[in-house]
Amino acid sequence: MLLEAVYHRPKLNWAYAYDQETIHLRLRTKKNDITEVYAWTGDKYDWSSTQELVPMEKMISDSMFDYWECTAKPLFRRMRYGFLLKDETESIWMTENDFQKERPKNSDRLFDFPFINPADVFTVPAWVKDTVFYQIFPERFANGDPSNDPENVLPWGGKPERDNFFGGDLQGVIDHLDHLSELGITGIYFTPIFAATTNHKYDTEDYMKIDPHFGDTDTLKRLVKACHDRGIRVLLDAVFNHSGRTFSPFVDVREKGEQSNYKDWFHIREYPLEVRDGIPTYDTFGFEPLMPKLNTEHPEVKEYLLKVAEYWIKEVGIDGWRLDVANEVDHQFWRDFRRVVKAVNPDAYILGEIWHESSPWLQGDQFDAVMNYPFTEAVLDFVVRGTLDAQGFANAIGKQMSRYPLQATEVAFNLLDSHDTARLLTLCEDNKNKMRLAALFQFTYSGTPCIYYGDEVGMDGANDPDCRKCMEWDPEKQDLQLFEFYKKLIQVRADHPALRTGSLQFLIAEREGTKLAYERRLDDESVLVLLNNDSTTQTLSVPVEEKAWTDAFTGSTWKAQRGKLTVKLAPYGYAVLYPAE
Amino acid sequence: MLLEAVYHRPKLNWAYAYDQETIHLRLRTKKNDITEVYAWTGDKYDWSSTQELVPMEKMISDSMFDYWECTAKPLFRRMRYGFLLKDETESIWMTENDFQKERPKNSDRLFDFPFINPADVFTVPAWVKDTVFYQIFPERFANGDPSNDPENVLPWGGKPERDNFFGGDLQGVIDHLDHLSELGITGIYFTPIFAATTNHKYDTEDYMKIDPHFGDTDTLKRLVKACHDRGIRVLLDAVFNHSGRTFSPFVDVREKGEQSNYKDWFHIREYPLEVRDGIPTYDTFGFEPLMPKLNTEHPEVKEYLLKVAEYWIKEVGIDGWRLDVANEVDHQFWRDFRRVVKAVNPDAYILGEIWHESSPWLQGDQFDAVMNYPFTEAVLDFVVRGTLDAQGFANAIGKQMSRYPLQATEVAFNLLDSHDTARLLTLCEDNKNKMRLAALFQFTYSGTPCIYYGDEVGMDGANDPDCRKCMEWDPEKQDLQLFEFYKKLIQVRADHPALRTGSLQFLIAEREGTKLAYERRLDDESVLVLLNNDSTTQTLSVPVEEKAWTDAFTGSTWKAQRGKLTVKLAPYGYAVLYPAE
Repeated sequence: MLLEAVYHRPKLNWAYAYDQETIHLRLRTKKNDITEVYAWTGDKYDWSSTQELVPMEKMISDSMFDYWECTAKPLFRRMRYGFLLKDETESIWMTENDFQKERPKNSDRLFDFPFINPADVFTVPAWVKDTVFYQIFPERFANGDPSNDPENVLPWGGKPERDNFFGGDLQGVIDHLDHLSELGITGIYFTPIFAATTNHKYDTEDYMKIDPHFGDTDTLKRLVKACHDRGIRVLLDAVFNHSGRTFSPFVDVREKGEQSNYKDWFHIREYPLEVRDGIPTYDTFGFEPLMPKLNTEHPEVKEYLLKVAEYWIKEVGIDGWRLDVANEVDHQFWRDFRRVVKAVNPDAYILGEIWHESSPWLQGDQFDAVMNYPFTEAVLDFVVRGTLDAQGFANAIGKQMSRYPLQATEVAFNLLDSHDTARLLTLCEDNKNKMRLAALFQFTYSGTPCIYYGDEVGMDGANDPDCRKCMEWDPEKQDLQLFEFYKKLIQVRADHPALRTGSLQFLIAEREGTKLAYERRLDDESVLVLLNNDSTTQTLSVPVEEKAWTDAFTGSTWKAQRGKLTVKLAPYGYAVLYPAE
Repeated sequence: MLLEAVYHRPKLNWAYAYDQETIHLRLRTKKNDITEVYAWTGDKYDWSSTQELVPMEKMISDSMFDYWECTAKPLFRRMRYGFLLKDETESIWMTENDFQKERPKNSDRLFDFPFINPADVFTVPAWVKDTVFYQIFPERFANGDPSNDPENVLPWGGKPERDNFFGGDLQGVIDHLDHLSELGITGIYFTPIFAATTNHKYDTEDYMKIDPHFGDTDTLKRLVKACHDRGIRVLLDAVFNHSGRTFSPFVDVREKGEQSNYKDWFHIREYPLEVRDGIPTYDTFGFEPLMPKLNTEHPEVKEYLLKVAEYWIKEVGIDGWRLDVANEVDHQFWRDFRRVVKAVNPDAYILGEIWHESSPWLQGDQFDAVMNYPFTEAVLDFVVRGTLDAQGFANAIGKQMSRYPLQATEVAFNLLDSHDTARLLTLCEDNKNKMRLAALFQFTYSGTPCIYYGDEVGMDGANDPDCRKCMEWDPEKQDLQLFEFYKKLIQVRADHPALRTGSLQFLIAEREGTKLAYERRLDDESVLVLLNNDSTTQTLSVPVEEKAWTDAFTGSTWKAQRGKLTVKLAPYGYAVLYPAE
C-alpha cells in the first residue's frame, strides 16, 4: 500500500453533511492500489456500543488516485471515525495522526465530525439541477425597441468590435422567448444589464438602473414575468468586484481626490488617479482603468451592494445572481451576500465566476456553484484539442468530482463557451460533429448545462469581440438541424433524471483511444451513454444487465448478447440508451 | 519522485495571507524524496513580465513528508503560481491539474491566489504569543470570602468529589495574584464563573450573573482591574454549546413542553423531556441530561449569546473567551461571534476547545486558536508514555505545524494538562524530572503556554475529580524548587523572543532514541534547546556557528570546537543555550 498517497482531512470535500442527517466520507488512495476500504464509525460519547465498519465504494478515479466514499446517518448527528484499508497482504488502520497495523484501542485519536448543524449544511436550490440555462449578451441578442438604441447604433449583423453597438435590448429578449421555449430552455443568464458605458456593461455606472439602451425597470419586470410564465428562471450578473469609471462615487474621487467622501470606497494607492506606464494608481480589474476595484470591506460599500443584491430580487423577482470576478472579492462579503440573498429568496442560485479550483467558495457559506471552466477545458481537451485521450478525460472529470461536495457538483454551471471565450463551433474548427459530441457530454453529466446564445443555430466566433456577434434570426442562415439536435438533447435530459443526478461510472475510457462509455444510475434507472470521439466508425461493447436498450435519439433498439451490449457508432457518433420496456 | 505524495491545494494552510501584503505558499512532498522545490509565481494579468521562480525551503517534516515553504509579496496583492520540483534525475512542473515535464506555456492552468483582501487575512492578537497563561478552576483555587460559601462547604484541602464544594471564589484569586506575578504569569484562563449548580459551572443557569458563591459582577470587575494593573490578561469560559438544566428558558420548556415559547431554543427530539435508557429525549452535551444543547442557529438564542459575549467584554473588560465544546456549535454562529467580539475588542483572544485537527476553525473567520491537545499528546507520548522516540516526537510536532497557518501556530494554546485530564505530575508518575522536561519543551516552542493551577508547586491528581483538588497554599507542602523552575522557565522565555516566534529546526531527533535538540531562530537571534529524555546521562553534539554559548538556566558557558557544540546532559536534563557575548 502506498500510504503516502492516502489522503483525508476533516470537513471540506472529505467529510461533509450532504443534508441534515447524512454525512459523506471520502478517502483518497493510489489508483488501483487498495482493494477494500472501510470507514470505522461511531458515536464519540458511546463508542464501544456504536462502532461499526462501513464499507466504502470507489466513487471515481483520476489519473493517479482512487476516491472512496460512503454515507452515514448517525443517530445523534455526530460521528467519530477512522479508516481501515486492505489489500491482498495487509490491513492498515488510519487515524487522524498516523497509520497503524493494530486496531486503535479507543476512538480518541480518530477523526471527528463534531455535529451536523443545519446552518452549516451546504444547501443548494433544488431547481437548478433540472434547469437548462441559456446565456444572453443583451446588446447582441435582439433589438426589440429601436427607440432606445444608442446614437451610434449599427445595422444588425455587422462585425462586432470592442466598442460598437447594435441595439440589442430587453424587449428583444421578450420578443424571442418562443425561440427559447421551443428549444426547451428553463433558465437565462444575462450578462450585465445595468447602466454602463460599454457594450458589455461590465463597467457599471449605476447599479440601481437598467441601462437605458436596454430598457428600464418596467421592461425587466415584464421580461421576468414573461419568463416565469414560461417556467424560465432569470439570473442577473452582479459586477461587484469593480465599478465603472463613471460610477458616481468614483467620479467624486476623480474630481475631489483625497477630499472625496468616497475615497475609501476604492483602493487608491496614490493620488492623483491616473495611469502611469500602463498601471493605474488605483487597484482595478486587471490593469483596466475603466474598472476601479471596489472596497467591498468598507461598511458603506458593502451596505450599498447588498442592497443592490436584495433590491433586484425583491423588485423584479430574479432567481439568482452570477457574480463577476467573484474570487477577487473578500469571502466575508460573500458570506453576507449569501445571507441577504437567501433571506429574500431561499431558492436563489448564487453562481460565482471562478476559473480555477473553487473549493474555498463551495463549502455552503458562500456560493452554490461556480462557472465550471475546468469542466469546459476537460471537454475541449478531449473532443476538440485531442490533448486528452478518453482515459485522460475520464480522469479529469473524476478529479473534478472529487474536489467538491456532491451538492456542488449537482448544480455546477457547465458551460462550453461564453462571452469570454471563442464559440464552441469555432473551437471545433467548424466541425459540427465534434460540437455535438461535446454538447452530448455536457447534457448527460451532472450540473446545469448552459448554451451560449446562438450556438444552437450554428453561430461561430473567435475570441472577444468576435464571439459577441449579433444573434442570427434569419431562418435561412440558421442551422435548423443543429437546433433540432439541441432540442432533442434537452428533451432526453428532461426525460431521464439519472442524467441529471444519477451516479456516474465510466465503463469504457480508452487509454490512447477515443472510445468513452459511462452509466448514469439513479435508484433503479440506468442510462448508458456511448461516445465515439474519432473520425472513423467504432464499435463499443459494454457489460449490461438488461437485455434490450432503446436509443433515446433514434428510438431504435439494441439487444445485448450474453450480458454484453455491442454498439457501432459513426464517426463522432454517440448513443444514449435506456432499458427497453 | 513520488508524485502521489506531492500535495497542495488553494488557500487553507497551503496558500494563505500571513499579513496584508505577504502570502505563504506550502507544498508537501515525500520525505527525503525531492532536493529542490520552487514556486513559480507572477501576476495573472501580466504573467510574462512578472513571472519568477522563488526557491522554497524545507520548513518542517513529519514521519512521511517534507513540507516546503516560501514567502511572496506580490505588488498588486494577487498571484498566479505553480511549482517546479527537482531531484537528481528530473524536473517536474506542478499545475492545478497535473504534473508535467515541460514548463507550461502560460499560467492559465496554474493555481490562483486571487487577491489579498484585508478582511480575509487571519489576524491574531499580538499579545498572545508573549503571554504565559495560568488556568484557574475557581471553586478550588482560594476561598477569599467565606461569606459567599455554599451551604454544604467542606474544609479546604479535602478530597474532591464530582459534587462537593470547598468555597473557592473570585476574591480568593484577587488575594493570590502576588503568587501569579511572582511566577511571571501574564494571563489567566478561568473555567466558568457564571451562575450554575455544579462545582465546575459548565451547566450555566444564568449567563449574565456571576455565580453567587464566586462573587458578583463587582468582584469580577475588581479582579480584572487588579489583573490588568499587573499586566495579567483575563480569559473567561463561554459555555455556549449547551446551557444548564436550570437555565430559565430550559426550565420553561421542561414545564410547558411544546407550549413553551422557548422550545426552539433547544433541540427537542421528543416530548416529554426525559431520559430513556440513559438517552435524553433532547440533544445534550454527550448524553448528559444536565446540559441541554442550545440551538445556536435560532435568531433569539444567537442574539442572546452574542450579547453575553459582548456584555462581559464591555462591562468588565475581559481580554477574550475560551469556547467550550466549540466544535459542536455551528460555524455560522462562530463567525458572528468573532465579528461581535472583535468589534468591541479587536485585541480579544478567541480560543476554541477542540481536541482534534482544527483547521476548519482556524482560517481567520472564527477562532484565533484552539486548546492544543494534539501538542499535549505528542509531548506526553514522548516524555511520559515513551510511545514516541525523539524522531517520532519531532515528526508529530512537524505535522502539527504543517496543519495550520503560521499565525495560528504562533498563538496556539499549548497546555500539558487541564481540569479535563489527569495532572502532569501524575501522568509523569510523580517523576518531576520528566515533568520539567515536558514543561521545558512547552516553554521553548511557539504558541502560548498554560500552567494548570498548582502544577507549579507540585500538585498531583488523577482524572476528574482528582485533578480538581484545592490549591495547595501551605508553603510547607508546596514544592518551592519546582516553583523556582517554572519561574526561571518563564523568565528564559521572556528573555528570548526567538523561543516565542522564531523558526524551528530540529538538529537532533534520534530514531529509537531519546536525544532531542532544536534551534529557534528569529532574525539574528539563535537559541539552542537540548533535551535528554533518558534515565541515563547523555551527550549531545550539534553543529553551531557561534563559538561560545551561555546556558540560560545555569549561566555557565559551553565552548564549541571545530563548529560543534558538545553538551553532557544529566538524566532528563536539558539546556537552553544562547550565544555568549
